[in-house]
Amino acid sequence: MITDAAIDRWLREDVGHHDVTNQVPGETTGRLVAKEAGVAAGLEAATAVFEYLDVDVLDALADGTAIEPGDELLRVAGPARDVLRGERVAVNLAGHAGGIATRTRAAVDAAREESDSVRIAGTRKTTPGLRGLEKRAVVAGGGDTHRLDLSHMVLVKDNHIAELGLEDAIAHFRDRVSFATALEVEVETVAQAPRAADAGADVLLLDNMTPAETRDAVEALAEFDVLTEASGGISIAAVPAYAATGVDIISMGSLTHSAPALDLSFRTGD
Amino acid sequence: MITDAAIDRWLREDVGHHDVTNQVPGETTGRLVAKEAGVAAGLEAATAVFEYLDVDVLDALADGTAIEPGDELLRVAGPARDVLRGERVAVNLAGHAGGIATRTRAAVDAAREESDSVRIAGTRKTTPGLRGLEKRAVVAGGGDTHRLDLSHMVLVKDNHIAELGLEDAIAHFRDRVSFATALEVEVETVAQAPRAADAGADVLLLDNMTPAETRDAVEALAEFDVLTEASGGISIAAVPAYAATGVDIISMGSLTHSAPALDLSFRTGD
Amino acid sequence: MITDAAIDRWLREDVGHHDVTNQVPGETTGRLVAKEAGVAAGLEAATAVFEYLDVDVLDALADGTAIEPGDELLRVAGPARDVLRGERVAVNLAGHAGGIATRTRAAVDAAREESDSVRIAGTRKTTPGLRGLEKRAVVAGGGDTHRLDLSHMVLVKDNHIAELGLEDAIAHFRDRVSFATALEVEVETVAQAPRAADAGADVLLLDNMTPAETRDAVEALAEFDVLTEASGGISIAAVPAYAATGVDIISMGSLTHSAPALDLSFRTGD
Amino acid sequence: MITDAAIDRWLREDVGHHDVTNQVPGETTGRLVAKEAGVAAGLEAATAVFEYLDVDVLDALADGTAIEPGDELLRVAGPARDVLRGERVAVNLAGHAGGIATRTRAAVDAAREESDSVRIAGTRKTTPGLRGLEKRAVVAGGGDTHRLDLSHMVLVKDNHIAELGLEDAIAHFRDRVSFATALEVEVETVAQAPRAADAGADVLLLDNMTPAETRDAVEALAEFDVLTEASGGISIAAVPAYAATGVDIISMGSLTHSAPALDLSFRTGD
Amino acid sequence: MITDAAIDRWLREDVGHHDVTNQVPGETTGRLVAKEAGVAAGLEAATAVFEYLDVDVLDALADGTAIEPGDELLRVAGPARDVLRGERVAVNLAGHAGGIATRTRAAVDAAREESDSVRIAGTRKTTPGLRGLEKRAVVAGGGDTHRLDLSHMVLVKDNHIAELGLEDAIAHFRDRVSFATALEVEVETVAQAPRAADAGADVLLLDNMTPAETRDAVEALAEFDVLTEASGGISIAAVPAYAATGVDIISMGSLTHSAPALDLSFRTGD
Amino acid sequence: MITDAAIDRWLREDVGHHDVTNQVPGETTGRLVAKEAGVAAGLEAATAVFEYLDVDVLDALADGTAIEPGDELLRVAGPARDVLRGERVAVNLAGHAGGIATRTRAAVDAAREESDSVRIAGTRKTTPGLRGLEKRAVVAGGGDTHRLDLSHMVLVKDNHIAELGLEDAIAHFRDRVSFATALEVEVETVAQAPRAADAGADVLLLDNMTPAETRDAVEALAEFDVLTEASGGISIAAVPAYAATGVDIISMGSLTHSAPALDLSFRTGD
Repeated sequence: MITDAAIDRWLREDVGHHDVTNQVPGETTGRLVAKEAGVAAGLEAATAVFEYLDVDVLDALADGTAIEPGDELLRVAGPARDVLRGERVAVNLAGHAGGIATRTRAAVDAAREESDSVRIAGTRKTTPGLRGLEKRAVVAGGGDTHRLDLSHMVLVKDNHIAELGLEDAIAHFRDRVSFATALEVEVETVAQAPRAADAGADVLLLDNMTPAETRDAVEALAEFDVLTEASGGISIAAVPAYAATGVDIISMGSLTHSAPALDLSFRTGD
Repeated sequence: MITDAAIDRWLREDVGHHDVTNQVPGETTGRLVAKEAGVAAGLEAATAVFEYLDVDVLDALADGTAIEPGDELLRVAGPARDVLRGERVAVNLAGHAGGIATRTRAAVDAAREESDSVRIAGTRKTTPGLRGLEKRAVVAGGGDTHRLDLSHMVLVKDNHIAELGLEDAIAHFRDRVSFATALEVEVETVAQAPRAADAGADVLLLDNMTPAETRDAVEALAEFDVLTEASGGISIAAVPAYAATGVDIISMGSLTHSAPALDLSFRTGD
Repeated sequence: MITDAAIDRWLREDVGHHDVTNQVPGETTGRLVAKEAGVAAGLEAATAVFEYLDVDVLDALADGTAIEPGDELLRVAGPARDVLRGERVAVNLAGHAGGIATRTRAAVDAAREESDSVRIAGTRKTTPGLRGLEKRAVVAGGGDTHRLDLSHMVLVKDNHIAELGLEDAIAHFRDRVSFATALEVEVETVAQAPRAADAGADVLLLDNMTPAETRDAVEALAEFDVLTEASGGISIAAVPAYAATGVDIISMGSLTHSAPALDLSFRTGD
Repeated sequence: MITDAAIDRWLREDVGHHDVTNQVPGETTGRLVAKEAGVAAGLEAATAVFEYLDVDVLDALADGTAIEPGDELLRVAGPARDVLRGERVAVNLAGHAGGIATRTRAAVDAAREESDSVRIAGTRKTTPGLRGLEKRAVVAGGGDTHRLDLSHMVLVKDNHIAELGLEDAIAHFRDRVSFATALEVEVETVAQAPRAADAGADVLLLDNMTPAETRDAVEALAEFDVLTEASGGISIAAVPAYAATGVDIISMGSLTHSAPALDLSFRTGD
Repeated sequence: MITDAAIDRWLREDVGHHDVTNQVPGETTGRLVAKEAGVAAGLEAATAVFEYLDVDVLDALADGTAIEPGDELLRVAGPARDVLRGERVAVNLAGHAGGIATRTRAAVDAAREESDSVRIAGTRKTTPGLRGLEKRAVVAGGGDTHRLDLSHMVLVKDNHIAELGLEDAIAHFRDRVSFATALEVEVETVAQAPRAADAGADVLLLDNMTPAETRDAVEALAEFDVLTEASGGISIAAVPAYAATGVDIISMGSLTHSAPALDLSFRTGD
Repeated sequence: MITDAAIDRWLREDVGHHDVTNQVPGETTGRLVAKEAGVAAGLEAATAVFEYLDVDVLDALADGTAIEPGDELLRVAGPARDVLRGERVAVNLAGHAGGIATRTRAAVDAAREESDSVRIAGTRKTTPGLRGLEKRAVVAGGGDTHRLDLSHMVLVKDNHIAELGLEDAIAHFRDRVSFATALEVEVETVAQAPRAADAGADVLLLDNMTPAETRDAVEALAEFDVLTEASGGISIAAVPAYAATGVDIISMGSLTHSAPALDLSFRTGD
């Protein structure tokens, strides 16, 4: 959810101490319009910004809706001053989130060329301050949030394994986390994968493996009731090859940290 | 500047209520290393995150430094728990800001093919919550911040002109702003440009014009002591053509809203 | 983690606008001492309070340590004014968390009479503002945090089932959550339990069942790879009876909302 | 008063980055219902939580109302998503505050067995972040808030007396506080009490005295226009014996730090 | 703009943990009335305070309106409790801002005795936390905000000049700031003024000069397209003498840091 | 106490998103120097600002010290960037608080012409956000804080009396407040004063009375153990006449809302 405290900060950041160009009397309307095709997201956040300013939100697409150029995403009406104050923050939020949703959809579509079930997931490589917005944008694009924060799912990493050994590291953390918390283990070789599954991992992170290695690891895990995740600099172009390996999840930091904004414009008064 | 309150929020957002994987005893070191070439930025912010956690920052590149793959951007030492807690937020900040600086540098380099003096500037299309970080990243890449917030410089826009008329709109705002505040006017036709300059604009925003139109507008303003800014969906590929028009400033929202993150990794314990 | 922003609020709340009794010159020491037996918790938080005030924390027990009357939990040294300012907040945190840890340990001990493996877990019935502190106190007492927030694990509740039907409700949420998120289903009859397991639940919440019903449900689930949780007003006296049913988890809201504080005193200057 | 900033924090703490179970369309109603007898409190806070979420509060008992099992404390109507989001925080607040009010009422009732006028008071041993809520809950139970923070009333303690001597310590602080601020002095022996009263104390804190000692101190102070307060680990069982001594105030940290929550449930949709 | 977060802090600061005198049932009205002549300001802020409390603001003068004793500045209606809670903060804001606007108007009037065009400007000598309110109050009084913060306009000061030399310091900063940012240079002698103008200053700060020196500096700058600002302990009595020098701007820290409050009273229930 | 959160806000407010003039390498020193005589205050706050920025505070006068022109109030050393960043906020705090302390001292001195014991007190007419700073400045000037917030002391006002009657209003609130809270009653006629005292007031607020009326009221209260406070637009010139009436307290809103700032300058590098 978007809190009032966040909206406070965002508006103050954009408006500054004394703006005069928004000191406009009267009422106006505004429309958020797509200038390119993509997937809508961030509209709950944009709605919250306008409602914070007591601007009425008359209509809004649901996050996740596919859009074409010219489509109207959001329509508002209220005092001109407040519509104008909220405009830039609302567009920045919806453009940023829409870009993430659009890129996620593209990755999902690429995956579907080879697999009906593989999930495209985000990572913790999000923009500080916008974790929730970006995770929800991934979902709007058809993706999977992956873990929301460090407390959501344990990830046993190479440094833990280096220190404690594979089996002991897994036992160490299994012993320390809730039953509500899944446990994922990062493996760097195909050989490590079944050992980790045997030691109790719920999910195997197949890190920086080629599609061929990934396929080998997936096969080596056939008998285990575990999920498998391919990760490590996977581009959208590479998604089909990974999707074809039978892996369950393909995670991509670029969904959130490198998606270009969706091109939107805000038009007032018509 | 990065405030403690922001760092509080960013760490809490990433860590959640109870993380166990960072509960590691002892001291460690960490290095932030480039995996691709680009321009360093956001290192003051990353430094602030580690210092908030009482981790020592032993060395850091200056923001704006050109980097090659393998270069070390930041080196820290401290309690393992705190180094690990700060890692993800620090990398996310430096990757995000570094991506902006790198893209800005590319745009500046493209401009230099045709002009020694044209400035590449950002816009207000920044990520909510990170205005300052992103503006400073533009500077690190050799760009110009453009206005920092609505209160920094007045921009007389088409809706103001539609309501009041060009000359009256300019007079209206000139009368309402400080001597410390520059006044820019958005013009949509070449013919409007000298009228706006004559009416007292400090800067002319030549919005959505082709390079040819931009050149015409620049020439029509030759006798005026004004600056000219080209804006409106200008890609890096289009920068040289605009730079060749003699315009003073080329502004690009994509510097901040669509720059892919700079690829960085954080390595502990070596 | 305890943020500076929280400590700011807590100290300001206790000190008010102008206190004179803490305006004491010079340096002093302070010791947090147990007046009754129990389990230490909240000492990381108490440490953070003193460090925020630039008081040195010379020694502190690890959260989870069993303590006897007279044991010293924390020792500090610094300016008298700052030691005195931090005292009340630190004692309130450690007393509150210690009470939760102590009650959790008592519930775990009661469970161990009948089962070596059943987990004692908290709930979301925590004190607003102190979720993390209280969850970590449950862990300090040997318990399981259960889900940390609504986003951590999905709980399909009676109202969802009433609206969508059992199987469809499970499918509905399974489709909407990350692979990283476990899915628990609340069942009210023994008959519902295997249906929910068959439909894909990871955990079954056996709500408000008697120990006999709980045992029946556990047996009905013997063939499924699911966890079972008994919940609903279970007192410490009732823990052994539930532990004997073979259930995996016993959750108790009273661990966090009804634990009496651990009796601690803070002694300065000796 | 409950600020929006606090409600922001409480909701964010409970909801996390992305919850799906509350994504329920349509409108619903909700009722907060007592499962045990006690005293209602915290309903202003619960109301504020729902109103923050734009849920209508149709009816609410006044804080301080005696309740029986099955009584409805609060009734709300609004979007199902928002009712569900507010539910847990509202119940946690009302359960926590109701527990304090109920325990306070029990202590007051115990006191009334022996005295018509003795006051039952809280202390500063409150839960960090909830001072105001808990003090108002003590009032709802028929108790006295005692001092609200360090700035509200001066308490001259043993360490001040050890350093400056009894009379000089009192003069020292009397000289430094406002006429609006009462001055209480902690005494440890019956003999100190009249000396402190003579030196200008408004209230005498009879710390850790037996009922017999308390009675002696009260009698020794008969000629002075001062109030007397008994304090130090007094249980509800011990209240009548202290009430019979003629002391004016009996203060009990356990009212706020050790009251079990009042058992409440929130029922939606009926 | 006034954020909810600021209003939160202001109300909590004034109300404290538990106030009883505002616990008044029923509805009431309130009127903010002038007890002396002056200029209204801060009424947007006062309005925001009441609206935060869900009190209706029925009528409010525009900031900048000249008022006479007995004039009504603001009229509200709502629950008595909330009207009373907001009263003190609203009066303090409007009295403080009104005092600044009134003093600014007096300085403007004094300047008009000798010049039709000279601007009276504030400085950065504002009350921490109220920069925006005070700058807008200066505007309400007919003054100029001057720079809003350090990022708004560069001021090259004596210490920069001492270190780098006059021309190099100007070049240094011109190179580092946006085209959107004006550059002012502080000069201490008449001789420095044309050098600074020649080196590219937009504005010359004539610091601590007598009116005669100021006139000399203005004349020495006649050929340059620069603005001139007189500053340094200028009282309202001294304004006409400076206004007569032909300087463009007279800035006065006393507008914000030393204006007595405008005398206002808040009357309820009539 | 000054919290980090407040300092965060004050610095961000003054610095903005990107300041370049403070980007100065190396270390420097700074001295806060008086340009006029007065009373030092706000130096704890100024110290906190510099310490937040990790600037060393080498020496600072105690709040309340009488100062002469040229006296050094505070001396700091640290990175030039951070010294410069903190300078303006620190000067604004110390100038504002010093002005209040100086005016309070003048009022106290005026009172001493006629009375050795009358107290000069502030009111709740403080600057929003700075209640604590201003109250402590009143104390630094030799004054009395008066009540710190609405919860500190009850003030029964004319509207309460109009509604409930004098005696009943007093009984109403006495019944609702803690023993720790004094109760003051506002009276508008001499005749009301003994009635209010008889009904249990601790303090009588003699509102808007002339000195002669005040003296009559004081005499009418001779037999009661109450304090008397004169209030209502009392100027420093009028203080001696009120002091001569025998009243216990003279309260003046102008101490905090209308005190001109103390003239201070901050000098770096020498």
